[in-house]
Amino acid sequence: MGSLDGMLLDARAAQRALARTEPGRRTRAIASMAAHLDAARSDVLAANALDLAAATDLSTALRDRLTLTPARFDGLVAAVREVAAMPDPLGEERPLGVRPNGLVVSRRRIPLGVVAVVFEARPNVGAESAAIAVRSGNAVVLRGGSEARRSNAAVVGALRAGLSAAGEDPNAVVLVDDPDRARVAELLQAVGRVDLAIPRGGPSLMAFVDAHARVPVIRHGAGICHVYVDAAADVTMASDIAFNAKVQRPGVCNAMETLLVHRAVAASLLPALGRRLEAAGVELRADAAAAGILDGVAHRAAEPADWSTEFLGLVLAVRVVDSLDQALAHIARYGTEHSAAIVTGDVSAADRFVREVDASCVLVNASTRFNDGGELGLGAEIGISTSRMHAFGPMSARELTAEKFVVRGTGQVRGSA
Amino acid sequence: MGSLDGMLLDARAAQRALARTEPGRRTRAIASMAAHLDAARSDVLAANALDLAAATDLSTALRDRLTLTPARFDGLVAAVREVAAMPDPLGEERPLGVRPNGLVVSRRRIPLGVVAVVFEARPNVGAESAAIAVRSGNAVVLRGGSEARRSNAAVVGALRAGLSAAGEDPNAVVLVDDPDRARVAELLQAVGRVDLAIPRGGPSLMAFVDAHARVPVIRHGAGICHVYVDAAADVTMASDIAFNAKVQRPGVCNAMETLLVHRAVAASLLPALGRRLEAAGVELRADAAAAGILDGVAHRAAEPADWSTEFLGLVLAVRVVDSLDQALAHIARYGTEHSAAIVTGDVSAADRFVREVDASCVLVNASTRFNDGGELGLGAEIGISTSRMHAFGPMSARELTAEKFVVRGTGQVRGSA
Repeated sequence: MGSLDGMLLDARAAQRALARTEPGRRTRAIASMAAHLDAARSDVLAANALDLAAATDLSTALRDRLTLTPARFDGLVAAVREVAAMPDPLGEERPLGVRPNGLVVSRRRIPLGVVAVVFEARPNVGAESAAIAVRSGNAVVLRGGSEARRSNAAVVGALRAGLSAAGEDPNAVVLVDDPDRARVAELLQAVGRVDLAIPRGGPSLMAFVDAHARVPVIRHGAGICHVYVDAAADVTMASDIAFNAKVQRPGVCNAMETLLVHRAVAASLLPALGRRLEAAGVELRADAAAAGILDGVAHRAAEPADWSTEFLGLVLAVRVVDSLDQALAHIARYGTEHSAAIVTGDVSAADRFVREVDASCVLVNASTRFNDGGELGLGAEIGISTSRMHAFGPMSARELTAEKFVVRGTGQVRGSA
Repeated sequence: MGSLDGMLLDARAAQRALARTEPGRRTRAIASMAAHLDAARSDVLAANALDLAAATDLSTALRDRLTLTPARFDGLVAAVREVAAMPDPLGEERPLGVRPNGLVVSRRRIPLGVVAVVFEARPNVGAESAAIAVRSGNAVVLRGGSEARRSNAAVVGALRAGLSAAGEDPNAVVLVDDPDRARVAELLQAVGRVDLAIPRGGPSLMAFVDAHARVPVIRHGAGICHVYVDAAADVTMASDIAFNAKVQRPGVCNAMETLLVHRAVAASLLPALGRRLEAAGVELRADAAAAGILDGVAHRAAEPADWSTEFLGLVLAVRVVDSLDQALAHIARYGTEHSAAIVTGDVSAADRFVREVDASCVLVNASTRFNDGGELGLGAEIGISTSRMHAFGPMSARELTAEKFVVRGTGQVRGSA
């Protein structure tokens, strides 16, 4: 644990200092991080090109996630700049009331401490996580996948230079640059050193977390996301939403993996939508009822495992259901509590779907792709929690804080009980 | 795992039904639980007398916590009734705003699911936890200490009868009545069956949790609570607060364990306060500076371990400090993030203490004994979180919920990124 433990202690010291500075200094630090990242543009893109060249055995989805196009890089710098403009959550004091004995009770927002983010592929995660951590007075320990090693080192180097240039301790943002997975286990077991671990990844990483975690964990788990097209759906709207949810960026967690269609609209929706998906390169895996309707559109018979698979690519499972009840039961059984959408013109069906679906984001007449911190108006995100504890859904600066109680009195003592 | 697993599945089914009923039905269920508990008064007190008779080797503090006096029983029934009157948190929808693309975003409150509470001694914990769980649409699995086995069975039997009488599934409140600690390990490892475990107890239970927990945990850990008497303190107020924090109920987690006194007021405070504590039977463990001032008052020299001990009884460690800085450093090193109070007339010292002390409740000029759900105005509590994740401080019905995002649209799809 030698050097990792030292790194965590250094991060803790940097975090304590950061949490006690004025909010304006945290703002300037993030702006400086953004400026240094922007200045490192060619280094970062070159490092990313090297990572892509070395990564010959990645799936299409992982390769897409690893890729930093110039436009994506611009978006990343803009996301960090936006975090500088976000309100500072620390020190916010929320009055709860005055007790009959005169005690004045409030809650005051404080950082969580040292947050470890374990992620795969996407090099933007490091920069967004770092900006959000600094905004909320936390330190962040980043552990990216080996496939993005050069990209992450270039990004984190620029961010740390930005912190130093702003006069802050760069150890508030650190990168664990050792590809051995034993380091992940050490992070997950660093009780008292790591206050929260956020693993972002697929079932293999989550199983590793199940086996090793001792520190508090918020999972950014797999997204087996559903779109349910109700009997009362507008078929054109349903087709557009389903197409967007599957095709617009299929390698990410809020893309649709299973389409459920009410029998009443299956015949009017599926053939045209199926052709549109086929033309976009989507492989359909249809249950028997859907297969019967998809005549003329290429498809395979869905296997039982397809309902529980996060394809992260151009594959879609399709099932025809007899009722809203059947759709709800399917989502309860196979969904991962990430995102689910209903397309319907029936207010009572929409209300029931909103009430009964257990997912971090439930959408009515909108694409699942909107379950994203930026799209929901939170700004950048450090992850999308698929566990209910502490945060559920996209997590931004506010979600990296806790509230302590503050009680102000004039000498009150407690009577006998 | 046979029967425990079955119990957890039954609890899940009861929880799902409870979460979907109207709020008024949950209110009636809790009122019925209170009425049946009240009607079981003589049974519960008789069971408690048998537990006390059998518990011959308990410490004074544990015996006090185990004891249900008639007045405490009345308080318990009243606490359950109060939970019936609390606002129902479920279904509450909080608007977040309308996005530029017209999406309407909100957050909607949902239960956590099945909550396991592992506790020691105090038989009131079962009833308060059950009421709070039902209020928030959760099921609760209670696992009390063997010393309170008869009391807990009598209490939980009455609560379940109350649920049945109200037409609800009694499996929303269940008691694990097997003294084998292996059952606790099973609860802590029931991933997917138990959504949250709340262990309430001392270092031995917490070490067991560290070693075994796989499900999310919120610790109600030890309270090494501090009172710091500042140079600018009113000495009479300081004496009253310190006396109350130590003596009023020494066996509970929010009692003071260490008194820190600024050198400037040590001579005017300590001799009289020392005599008052001595007369109340408190054993003082003083550092050298305090010992020099406590001349004439019985005391022992403090050992290093005393600063890290939750005495849970009539023992108090006393240290004289040179400054607010030294007091803050002492609390940061030895405190358990439970409760800390400052007594001072100096607003800037109070503000700094409030800002810099990491504790679930920071008090100014009031006794640490006020860190309690009822005293802070939350109503009954299911525990006092000493971890920052999800909740920090007393936890009531609201703290047993999460918020999912709800997005309502008119066909929005996401553009390219």
